[in-house]
Amino acid sequence: MTQRSPKLDRRARSANRSDTRSALVRCGVEMFAERGFQATGIDEVLKRVGVPKGSFYHFFPSKQAFGEAVIDSYAQYFERKLDRLLTDDSRPPLERLAAFVEEARLGMTKHQFQRGCLIGNLGQELWELNGRFRQKLEGVLLSWQHRTAACLREAAAAGELATRLNEADSEMLARFFWIGWEGAILRAKLTQNDEPLRLFADCFFKKFLR
Amino acid sequence: MTQRSPKLDRRARSANRSDTRSALVRCGVEMFAERGFQATGIDEVLKRVGVPKGSFYHFFPSKQAFGEAVIDSYAQYFERKLDRLLTDDSRPPLERLAAFVEEARLGMTKHQFQRGCLIGNLGQELWELNGRFRQKLEGVLLSWQHRTAACLREAAAAGELATRLNEADSEMLARFFWIGWEGAILRAKLTQNDEPLRLFADCFFKKFLR
Repeated sequence: MTQRSPKLDRRARSANRSDTRSALVRCGVEMFAERGFQATGIDEVLKRVGVPKGSFYHFFPSKQAFGEAVIDSYAQYFERKLDRLLTDDSRPPLERLAAFVEEARLGMTKHQFQRGCLIGNLGQELWELNGRFRQKLEGVLLSWQHRTAACLREAAAAGELATRLNEADSEMLARFFWIGWEGAILRAKLTQNDEPLRLFADCFFKKFLR
Repeated sequence: MTQRSPKLDRRARSANRSDTRSALVRCGVEMFAERGFQATGIDEVLKRVGVPKGSFYHFFPSKQAFGEAVIDSYAQYFERKLDRLLTDDSRPPLERLAAFVEEARLGMTKHQFQRGCLIGNLGQELWELNGRFRQKLEGVLLSWQHRTAACLREAAAAGELATRLNEADSEMLARFFWIGWEGAILRAKLTQNDEPLRLFADCFFKKFLR
């Protein structure tokens, strides 16, 4: 057997710990998006990831703390995705928003309409969630709204919309989009097809933006 | 002690049984609307209503059967409400839809934004619900959509909209409304205020219908 130096061992252990935490959070994202927070048991997360309970509590003092880490991770992933799509200068602004809609549609289709939006799912369960959780979720939705509003302002400036939009108008329109879009995701889980996503987006683009 | 006839006793027992079933279903409507299907324990329903377990299983062979009875009851209640509001000839058609929005807004405010739409809540939990449940929920939403579409056609016929609507257009617009409205209810639970309801309805009326 070859022996590694203590330094390499430390690095390996540290990399391993970071991998374990990431794996737990990734599993949390999947399970919360499918079934929500309350119905997700820590035991099943441990089983899926293949780590002992002590390892979980090493990273997360409570299920609430785990939930917050999962929300943060999903929010970061989603913000990167929105930034990639909505600030893509190679396309006109409205096409960027349409590209986001299309990517979301393909994503839901790929997962057979079992997975919705993690933020929407958690928002739905609020009867027992505390204010900290609620503010966190609303904060995530607001960050998506601001990014969408900026894209809509670019669309207006490029002459893609019927009217110019001031900042308040664009925020209102983007807020309307996200309110309705979360409803469309919910409905697509019910119909088990992409029709609600297409219908909502088509109406939004045709009636609101042209 | 006065003695009642056996016939009266039978009637009283029958009335009592029917009351117990109604009380269980009413409690189910409340609890499902607050916290959903999975998180609602039959034990807590029994405790709230004050009946023994055997009594529950006398009426409902399973939690699924109870869930279906609760959905049916809520659907009936909601259809009566929509019929009362949306076919009220004393008001122009668009005012009727606005009256529905206002009643829903007041209802959510009264319950401090803890209770959402029972149908929306249950739809959100579909990862483990069977097809029968899913079709039932979609059927309820469709019945609301058809009623709303009829009201929109009346609005168009009365010259309240910018354009005439054929049946397909009115169904599409009503479907858009219900997709987005369920999203607005979800968001109002998150913000704990009526702003998402007002914003969605205002945009819908201003941008879509005028």
